[in-house]
Amino acid sequence: MPGAQFPKIDANRRAWFRIVAPNATNVSVSLPGGRGTKGDDGVWTITTSPLAPGFHYYSITVDGATVSDPASDSYFGTGRMSSAIEVPSSGDDFYLPKDVPHGDIRAHYYFAKSNGQTRRCFVYTPPGYDTNLTARYPVLYLQHGMGEDARGWSDQGRTGFILDNLIAEGKAKPMLVVMDDGGITPGAMGGPRRGGGPNFWDKFTQVFIEDIIPMIDSTYRTIPDREHRAMAGLSLGGTQTMEITQAHLDQFAYIGVFSAPFGFPQVPGGFNGSLGDPTAFAKQVKVLFISYGTAGDLAARGTQAFHRALEQASIKHVFYESPGTAHEWLTWRRSLHEFAPLLFQTQ
Amino acid sequence: MPGAQFPKIDANRRAWFRIVAPNATNVSVSLPGGRGTKGDDGVWTITTSPLAPGFHYYSITVDGATVSDPASDSYFGTGRMSSAIEVPSSGDDFYLPKDVPHGDIRAHYYFAKSNGQTRRCFVYTPPGYDTNLTARYPVLYLQHGMGEDARGWSDQGRTGFILDNLIAEGKAKPMLVVMDDGGITPGAMGGPRRGGGPNFWDKFTQVFIEDIIPMIDSTYRTIPDREHRAMAGLSLGGTQTMEITQAHLDQFAYIGVFSAPFGFPQVPGGFNGSLGDPTAFAKQVKVLFISYGTAGDLAARGTQAFHRALEQASIKHVFYESPGTAHEWLTWRRSLHEFAPLLFQTQ
Repeated sequence: MPGAQFPKIDANRRAWFRIVAPNATNVSVSLPGGRGTKGDDGVWTITTSPLAPGFHYYSITVDGATVSDPASDSYFGTGRMSSAIEVPSSGDDFYLPKDVPHGDIRAHYYFAKSNGQTRRCFVYTPPGYDTNLTARYPVLYLQHGMGEDARGWSDQGRTGFILDNLIAEGKAKPMLVVMDDGGITPGAMGGPRRGGGPNFWDKFTQVFIEDIIPMIDSTYRTIPDREHRAMAGLSLGGTQTMEITQAHLDQFAYIGVFSAPFGFPQVPGGFNGSLGDPTAFAKQVKVLFISYGTAGDLAARGTQAFHRALEQASIKHVFYESPGTAHEWLTWRRSLHEFAPLLFQTQ
Repeated sequence: MPGAQFPKIDANRRAWFRIVAPNATNVSVSLPGGRGTKGDDGVWTITTSPLAPGFHYYSITVDGATVSDPASDSYFGTGRMSSAIEVPSSGDDFYLPKDVPHGDIRAHYYFAKSNGQTRRCFVYTPPGYDTNLTARYPVLYLQHGMGEDARGWSDQGRTGFILDNLIAEGKAKPMLVVMDDGGITPGAMGGPRRGGGPNFWDKFTQVFIEDIIPMIDSTYRTIPDREHRAMAGLSLGGTQTMEITQAHLDQFAYIGVFSAPFGFPQVPGGFNGSLGDPTAFAKQVKVLFISYGTAGDLAARGTQAFHRALEQASIKHVFYESPGTAHEWLTWRRSLHEFAPLLFQTQ
């Protein structure tokens, strides 16, 4: 918050919080080691263990009540408005605003016939979109994780700054990035969540294919073919990406799966059998990118196993391991930063 | 939150909250009558008195700790991330999304030379902006209140839906709306707050005149003259509007002041004396619009007094009283809804 002294991160990457709670008997923060002590003035001071670099959701618990911190910005994550703290990662400045041309991130509302909802998506339009009025652009569709919504990639993910910086350096092609709600927060699509499996987003697949893609192609100056369309997602959004791109390979030539804890298709049976034919697959899929973080990412084993299976089947793909990060947004910002330069380079 | 049962508003406009806090001895909500009782299961139920229609910030207090509610969306208000609840106002649907063409609200980043900051503003571009590529548009600059920031008018104010609906009905001209940070949250402009007076935003005035307006005119397809430029603001942002438009009357022909609790100029001395010459004033200022809410708005007396002074001086203006609303966003949404149709009609 502007002008606030707390929360803060010290030189040892420990987070410090101060909370006025004179009558409370127990105050804690849901970060490693986040226990508090009360001062004589009724102010609790809470410090954590040294934290991994990255973006960490947290909540405060006061006498058993789990609540949000008004002294931090909050984000839609974990299925609700969640406080979060950013632990700087030395050497990583690719997601920070720099003195380069900036694209806009637009909140765009549209009516989806598939489910009768007025929906909101966020669309990154690159620098120059408003001045090069005859230019048309390829599109990356980018999906959030479980408990997050369409805001995730622009707010937590810093998609705009990542793309601005890559485009300014000439490392990525100017592209649109569309961030919509994948319906993987219970209740988000207005319907019941299907129990058990990961695929309770059936409705989203229909909205995505029948409403979102045609709406984007008719609203923005896109190049509306599969060679200029990519899809990527993080965590459960990565699993969605695998399922949707497999079922609609006529629509996408680039696929990114960041820290997907499950949902990888069988090799060689997956992708309608095309994972059994390396030449055919490489012709169809320009880039298949898979990634995870090396510091306790719950998608580590699955991603490593999928990588080995792809290697054994001689399926061309890109495998990225984010050093020292967990199942959180720094892994996914880095994944986007690695993935975006690979897109739309072969045209 | 998607799928959540609480908080809720009942038929008597009382708000209901449920908070799990098994070890707490006192839980309350900062809304009228917002006291809680604990059930045997450790769940607190909190109900309020019947609430006025409108948009109300609130916080939860647990054993003396004032915190935010993870079960509500949160907004930058009161100088921090604040929970809020919307009490429906029967008959008011002008700010709700309807099946009409929607403009985009863009988060736009730019570098301001005046203070060396990379800043963010929000820009509403009306339906058709991306297809009528030779059209140019007038601009309304719209300022938030104290403790809020550039997000206020788009998130709390619902500017996009209000303009979408007015434009679809043919009641307002298609226009851009620019919502920037007025620097009236301590620390927001990176400098110290000046004590005492209301005018601690000196730096904003410079950024606004020297950076924001030229940046908007060079980035978007505006009509860059005073006859196609309006400024309005709420509460302290209304006072800013009065000060800035008085000092820069060569730049604005339309002025809106919503619930400004102080800062009205002397009549007839104000506006560099032009408030003493009704004919000259009416020629210069196409619309001077002042408003407040009739249900306890702290700007009521000042606005009424200014209205009488303007009447006595025969200064043409529009006086709007929002029935039954207080110093909160429903008053300001209605004020925008009344003000926007008056803009840019004389060209």
